[in-house]
Amino acid sequence: MLEKIDLDKKLSKKEFGIVMDELAPRLSFLQRECRASGIPIMVVFEGWGASGKGTLINKLIAPLDPRGFKVFTIQKVSEEEAMRPFLWRFWTRLPAKGRIHIFDRSWYRSMIMEYLEGNKGDVVKGRALEDIIHFEQELSEDGMVIIKFFLHISQKEQKVRFKSLEKNNTTKWRVNKQDWKQNEDYDKYRIVFDDMIAKTDTEYAPWTIIESTNKEYAASKIIATVVERLQEIIETKKLKNDELKKEEVRTIIIPEKAVELPESDNKNLLDTGNKSFQAIEQSLKLDVLSGVDLSNSLDKEKYKKKLIELQNKLAILHYEMYQKRIPVVLAFEGWDAAGKGGAIKRLTENIDPRGYEVVPVAAPNDIERAHHYLWRFWNAIPKAGHLTIFDRTWYGRVLVERIEGFCSENEWKRAYNEINNMEEHLTNFGCIVIKFWLHIDQSEQEKRFLERQQNPQKQWKITEEDWRNREKWDDYVDAVNEMVIRTSTTAAPWIIVEANDKYYARIKVLETVVHALEERMIAEKNQT
Amino acid sequence: MLEKIDLDKKLSKKEFGIVMDELAPRLSFLQRECRASGIPIMVVFEGWGASGKGTLINKLIAPLDPRGFKVFTIQKVSEEEAMRPFLWRFWTRLPAKGRIHIFDRSWYRSMIMEYLEGNKGDVVKGRALEDIIHFEQELSEDGMVIIKFFLHISQKEQKVRFKSLEKNNTTKWRVNKQDWKQNEDYDKYRIVFDDMIAKTDTEYAPWTIIESTNKEYAASKIIATVVERLQEIIETKKLKNDELKKEEVRTIIIPEKAVELPESDNKNLLDTGNKSFQAIEQSLKLDVLSGVDLSNSLDKEKYKKKLIELQNKLAILHYEMYQKRIPVVLAFEGWDAAGKGGAIKRLTENIDPRGYEVVPVAAPNDIERAHHYLWRFWNAIPKAGHLTIFDRTWYGRVLVERIEGFCSENEWKRAYNEINNMEEHLTNFGCIVIKFWLHIDQSEQEKRFLERQQNPQKQWKITEEDWRNREKWDDYVDAVNEMVIRTSTTAAPWIIVEANDKYYARIKVLETVVHALEERMIAEKNQT
Repeated sequence: MLEKIDLDKKLSKKEFGIVMDELAPRLSFLQRECRASGIPIMVVFEGWGASGKGTLINKLIAPLDPRGFKVFTIQKVSEEEAMRPFLWRFWTRLPAKGRIHIFDRSWYRSMIMEYLEGNKGDVVKGRALEDIIHFEQELSEDGMVIIKFFLHISQKEQKVRFKSLEKNNTTKWRVNKQDWKQNEDYDKYRIVFDDMIAKTDTEYAPWTIIESTNKEYAASKIIATVVERLQEIIETKKLKNDELKKEEVRTIIIPEKAVELPESDNKNLLDTGNKSFQAIEQSLKLDVLSGVDLSNSLDKEKYKKKLIELQNKLAILHYEMYQKRIPVVLAFEGWDAAGKGGAIKRLTENIDPRGYEVVPVAAPNDIERAHHYLWRFWNAIPKAGHLTIFDRTWYGRVLVERIEGFCSENEWKRAYNEINNMEEHLTNFGCIVIKFWLHIDQSEQEKRFLERQQNPQKQWKITEEDWRNREKWDDYVDAVNEMVIRTSTTAAPWIIVEANDKYYARIKVLETVVHALEERMIAEKNQT
Repeated sequence: MLEKIDLDKKLSKKEFGIVMDELAPRLSFLQRECRASGIPIMVVFEGWGASGKGTLINKLIAPLDPRGFKVFTIQKVSEEEAMRPFLWRFWTRLPAKGRIHIFDRSWYRSMIMEYLEGNKGDVVKGRALEDIIHFEQELSEDGMVIIKFFLHISQKEQKVRFKSLEKNNTTKWRVNKQDWKQNEDYDKYRIVFDDMIAKTDTEYAPWTIIESTNKEYAASKIIATVVERLQEIIETKKLKNDELKKEEVRTIIIPEKAVELPESDNKNLLDTGNKSFQAIEQSLKLDVLSGVDLSNSLDKEKYKKKLIELQNKLAILHYEMYQKRIPVVLAFEGWDAAGKGGAIKRLTENIDPRGYEVVPVAAPNDIERAHHYLWRFWNAIPKAGHLTIFDRTWYGRVLVERIEGFCSENEWKRAYNEINNMEEHLTNFGCIVIKFWLHIDQSEQEKRFLERQQNPQKQWKITEEDWRNREKWDDYVDAVNEMVIRTSTTAAPWIIVEANDKYYARIKVLETVVHALEERMIAEKNQT
């Protein structure tokens, strides 16, 4: 998922001033509220070397009352620490109720070192992950708020920063061999970070990836995330208290006379309604779609040539895949009228129909509704050697079901993990899993909708509902951004397909599939 | 934990008749309620070969409406199944809402086969465990009720059953090589089963171990467990519905006039109050304490001789342990006046005071209360090479805090897992963890209390609270039984110490510790 992040985002100093004017008082207000309610908070900073952890922690703590927080820098295990189990130094550093502990690197550090830096520590690979998940889960269940940041910069940016640190005599000690190794093996590290984030991104302790090229942007996003999370916690707590009060009122007084129930406190904690702040806040959101270049296109000649070439390759690969007993799952999602059907048609046109199946996914029927939402997809997964193409998928849970309220907030938030687990189960079995988001813009969609209405042969493709969904475009943008970030794993990546031009889109889909199959065939050959 | 189970339990056919008269109608009533409420149920049977799974499943289904359930026998993976990931055959066999699916062996079978029978299947060791935990967790969160039974018989009993099956021409096909291997390697299998149960015994999908020597006893316990679990589910559901109704009533009508609130349905679902049934029901409870032989004793001469011998051994082992950097945790729990202090004194009398620490655990202070309940114990765990003795422990959570209501039901139920995780983290690091329950009976306790009151030097040891705790003896018996079963693992076992005779108790504690250290020293030597 890290490669999906747009690292060019920035804010000016002036914009940062606007953010801080708005958020600093809110943050210090929330700190007081959390203290009063006895809520303990842990904020974790992980990320690339030279991604600015120190600087950004300073920005975060500036508005805080220093009596209420403490910063821990987690370095190599000390002699004392090495004599205890891995989690000891974190269990003993938990904040008491109402306090904030900030970790500059954390329990994730040990795991990463074990994976990549080959330091044989006290952490057994695999086991450490399980320990971390239990650790965070047990603390959250006990009321701990856990906020985790991953500070992300590009390989190039990291190199520039290392060099600039080395140039200066007072900072050059901060760059060592290990740091340069990280920069050289950037892609290897990225895959490990991706995996770590995917496996520990839970609804109770979610990761927020911070684009850290520009420090004003990064600091704003960090502070906004903390404010949002604490606000949510305080509001939930208040709601619960109100419920309890109502409960008391109801139980004790009702039989006597009607009473005025205490109103719940709805004021949006110090929100000043500042317009320029709101615009900046919008830019802090998760975002993979806005960077997509929809002008990508392909002329008809090239398209036809490439199509034939790729379809022929695919036919052969499909046969090889069958012989090697490799199952393949292709998942298609995208805007209405983005061209899913057309892309799927081009994929399958030339391959053996006995070896693939297209599964169209509509609203669940009665029997499906009587089961877990993943049940119907489990029923449809391909057996070894077969290809299954899903036209719409299990991601409905975090798209239409989320937006239309067909499931609870808790349910769709849980779903990212559930889906990651399912896909990991498939890929561990040897299945190739690729997910496509066919992306078009609003005006292209309108054009296509109108075309469909005017063409008697296509009218069946467009309904009132399509127009209604269109009104929820912005909600879908948020949901798609979050979905792609939370479920794009190295083993089962999301491919965003620029689909304003249908030719371009179809070729990109075919190329992606052909490429993935070719890579697997090479891997298989190397194994034997 | 399996070795702790008393396998001599039985019921007569007549007693079984009483149980069924009471429970059969309740079970079929509950089945109808679950269907009406759309609750899906999975019942899992795992256990030793020839432990009676088929027979017992038949007893369970006898009272059920056959239109509402289905039995699945999970055998070796078929060709079709081998072409899909491990969990596929279970996901596709999920019950719809309101239905019951019973599994004669289950997803645990694959895991066990991989561990022990060396069949290289599609299950990667370790990974399968994680998959199973996710599977059960995701289903429970979606409303699935998961009831898991482990049918337990002794090695001897299994041998008898295999032989008797083999004698009969119509049943001899049922015993194969693999079965005999299980019988021969009984202890090896037991350790794997223990580990499997400990790691997958969760509050949402708990295991019930069934003593299966006597089939009337086993069937009664199975049916009673299912009835109890479903009753709980239905009652919770009803409570929630009532809450919702009240909510509506309150919101809509209160301003007008006082209303009569709907009463919650408190009748204990068809419970007839049959006394002979209630007596039998009591005998179905988890039980490790009642089998303890409290007449064990030791005369003073022998005691003195053994004491010196063991203390000398321990002094040397303590030194070796220090050199090898092995940390040791000894946890002491037991009835008031059971002799914890005396036993600890005899343990430490002769060892180097720089290498051990005794941590007395009282009610948490303010700072401790402001943290997770395990925090204060993490702070006290020994570093490598050191010995820490806890006089009362983290098990307070599932003993006094459970009984006095100092924590919620949810909190103490969660604690078994949390504690297992913590202890596993310690033992993975190489720590030796041994837990002692010092057991005396009620009359011995009374004797000791009165002695203390009469002896001016011991009066400080006895308070009003001790007498109050004594009144809750039966509650503690239940809590201790459950604690020992749920947290006795191979790596961190509970040792029940028969402590009516102090000499006997002190020697057993010393012997256990000396033995564990000796074993570790041998293991260490073999490694190098």
